Amino acid sequence: MSHEYFNPVRSVYGAGALSSLPDLLAGRRTLLVTFPEARALGLVGRIEQLLGDKLAGVIDDVRPNPDVAELKALYNGFWRDPDAAEVIVAVGGGSAIDTAKALMVGTAGRSFDELVAALAVGNTFVPACTKILIAVPTTAGTGSEVTPWATIWDRERQVKHSLHLKQTWPSIALLDPELMLSLPPSVTLQSGLDALSHALESIWNVNANPVSDVFAVAAVHEILATLPLLMVQPGDIGLRGRMALAALKAGMAFSNTRTALAHSISYEMTLRYGLPHGIACSFPLPMVLERALGRRTDRDAVLRQALGSPLEQAPRRLAAFIEQLGVKTRFADYGVSDEQADRMVAHALTGARGKNFIGAAAQETA
Amino acid sequence: MSHEYFNPVRSVYGAGALSSLPDLLAGRRTLLVTFPEARALGLVGRIEQLLGDKLAGVIDDVRPNPDVAELKALYNGFWRDPDAAEVIVAVGGGSAIDTAKALMVGTAGRSFDELVAALAVGNTFVPACTKILIAVPTTAGTGSEVTPWATIWDRERQVKHSLHLKQTWPSIALLDPELMLSLPPSVTLQSGLDALSHALESIWNVNANPVSDVFAVAAVHEILATLPLLMVQPGDIGLRGRMALAALKAGMAFSNTRTALAHSISYEMTLRYGLPHGIACSFPLPMVLERALGRRTDRDAVLRQALGSPLEQAPRRLAAFIEQLGVKTRFADYGVSDEQADRMVAHALTGARGKNFIGAAAQETA
Repeated sequence: MSHEYFNPVRSVYGAGALSSLPDLLAGRRTLLVTFPEARALGLVGRIEQLLGDKLAGVIDDVRPNPDVAELKALYNGFWRDPDAAEVIVAVGGGSAIDTAKALMVGTAGRSFDELVAALAVGNTFVPACTKILIAVPTTAGTGSEVTPWATIWDRERQVKHSLHLKQTWPSIALLDPELMLSLPPSVTLQSGLDALSHALESIWNVNANPVSDVFAVAAVHEILATLPLLMVQPGDIGLRGRMALAALKAGMAFSNTRTALAHSISYEMTLRYGLPHGIACSFPLPMVLERALGRRTDRDAVLRQALGSPLEQAPRRLAAFIEQLGVKTRFADYGVSDEQADRMVAHALTGARGKNFIGAAAQETA
Repeated sequence: MSHEYFNPVRSVYGAGALSSLPDLLAGRRTLLVTFPEARALGLVGRIEQLLGDKLAGVIDDVRPNPDVAELKALYNGFWRDPDAAEVIVAVGGGSAIDTAKALMVGTAGRSFDELVAALAVGNTFVPACTKILIAVPTTAGTGSEVTPWATIWDRERQVKHSLHLKQTWPSIALLDPELMLSLPPSVTLQSGLDALSHALESIWNVNANPVSDVFAVAAVHEILATLPLLMVQPGDIGLRGRMALAALKAGMAFSNTRTALAHSISYEMTLRYGLPHGIACSFPLPMVLERALGRRTDRDAVLRQALGSPLEQAPRRLAAFIEQLGVKTRFADYGVSDEQADRMVAHALTGARGKNFIGAAAQETA
């Protein structure tokens, strides 16, 4: 059996690294895609100053969990003048970066409906025109800055689309922990737990490989050591930097494995129960870990590296870690009955991400 | 201060992975570059069978430490018919892969003398034409499969050139531990120690960064655990695979930092004393580690992760590890007097690689 690892994103990181944007852009015309509060935070103004007349436009009405309903106007507007910008700089959390990934691939007819139609039948379409993406995360969690994936929601139809093309890798992930100092506690927590989920889900994954494992183990160690400290010292630039790098490493891991059962469960918890993504994909981690143990010797070995010995007690230790951060880890805590939970997990195991879980096949034949 | 990490090489690995070559080539015409013994080992025959009429040519007279004197004819011969092959598959150790990297960049006049002239003044030239490189290492050590560097020797003038262009990254590193089963003990040892040197040199390096550190620490752990076992069980495919991956990870680390003082010392030991590269760059490691300790808190922390506590005893433990493999670790063991050694180290610190050593600046001003 052979494995593959590939990640072509250039990472640039350091406190104050945002000021290297003009060098990285080298005079190319740029569209800024960011979140609504970025202007009040002074971020849009700073980038306007950095880029001057090379800033061809600003989209700052990106919503959490971008939906086809909102993306359509943005996409069609952007592609009306395909020469306006060569580069898209996405500054924000996963939603801003995912929005930029949807924008960067132009269909032949420059129409969002064409893109959605292509997504619905898989990811086989070849963009007629593409833009270059520089991703500047302002949260430490999504990993979207080093993956080609974007999640596009269709709340009306209660489905999610996954965009992933070889053209949707960012060229550069620009990590500046100074941009994360103003993150509210809830977002710091949710994005940090999202990163933990990415790292662990890449380990109990049928697509795991020796390079993704290296990143995943490092990310788990750093998140377990850093996140509790950061929650009490949110203004510590050193801790912000460590979480930014841990989230990057988790992203480097799951960029080649995708996620697994916990994320498969999370989609229903978010769509039906409105749970924020970072909570929805992390509260089930101890339960999923319990199901992962003993499935495969090589996965147990990597989980032991990540979570320590004795491995049998790792689910209890992981639950204690998450609960200590104020996040409940049982379905009942979220108003989901045992029976509903069993149904939800069984359904999640049949989803695309659920099938990545090393216990999925055994589950099906059990 | 900001850091960067970038490595665009796709890694493909697994026992028997060589048979995926036709899929990876997808019908493109290919030149095979390999070592003289490859034909007797059946390797050339196997690749001829795999590629059929897509194999446009075979160069199998690659010498250890490729020299300008030998490369000239190969290069000029290859570029006489630039359309003969789109892809170069290099099968062998660092010398085969480095030879392929020299071949893959065509100058405007398709002349090796032009390439050497360009190397002599730095690495600023833009190739007029380039080929795609798939690197298939048959040793576990060089890391050349995941770096853009090639070392080209000029023994007559007693200098070495370093080729490194953004065009000289391999597209794919294809790792098949089955190809390493026939490696003689001396080469297994020398290449394994070369990998250990790459990993450690990327840590005590002014260019170290949080991503290179992750790879370096993993590589050091795996080499320390695997190499002694492999020396007594050279036919164990599992151990061969672990060393291949450890060498790959060491390569992923130093692909972004380059090497440091031990390699700077090694060049003189190889040119003047004829010491094989893997020995020349690893026997000084305990001495260089001794000089590295206490220079920078962040580097001490990563060295502690890699080599364990107490850190002050790490040089002694590292020397014992290398000596237990039958390699002496003092200059005197190689006929170099203390005085000559001091001169050599002082000179090495002023070389391009020596300046990467975290102790170099302090040394100069001391």
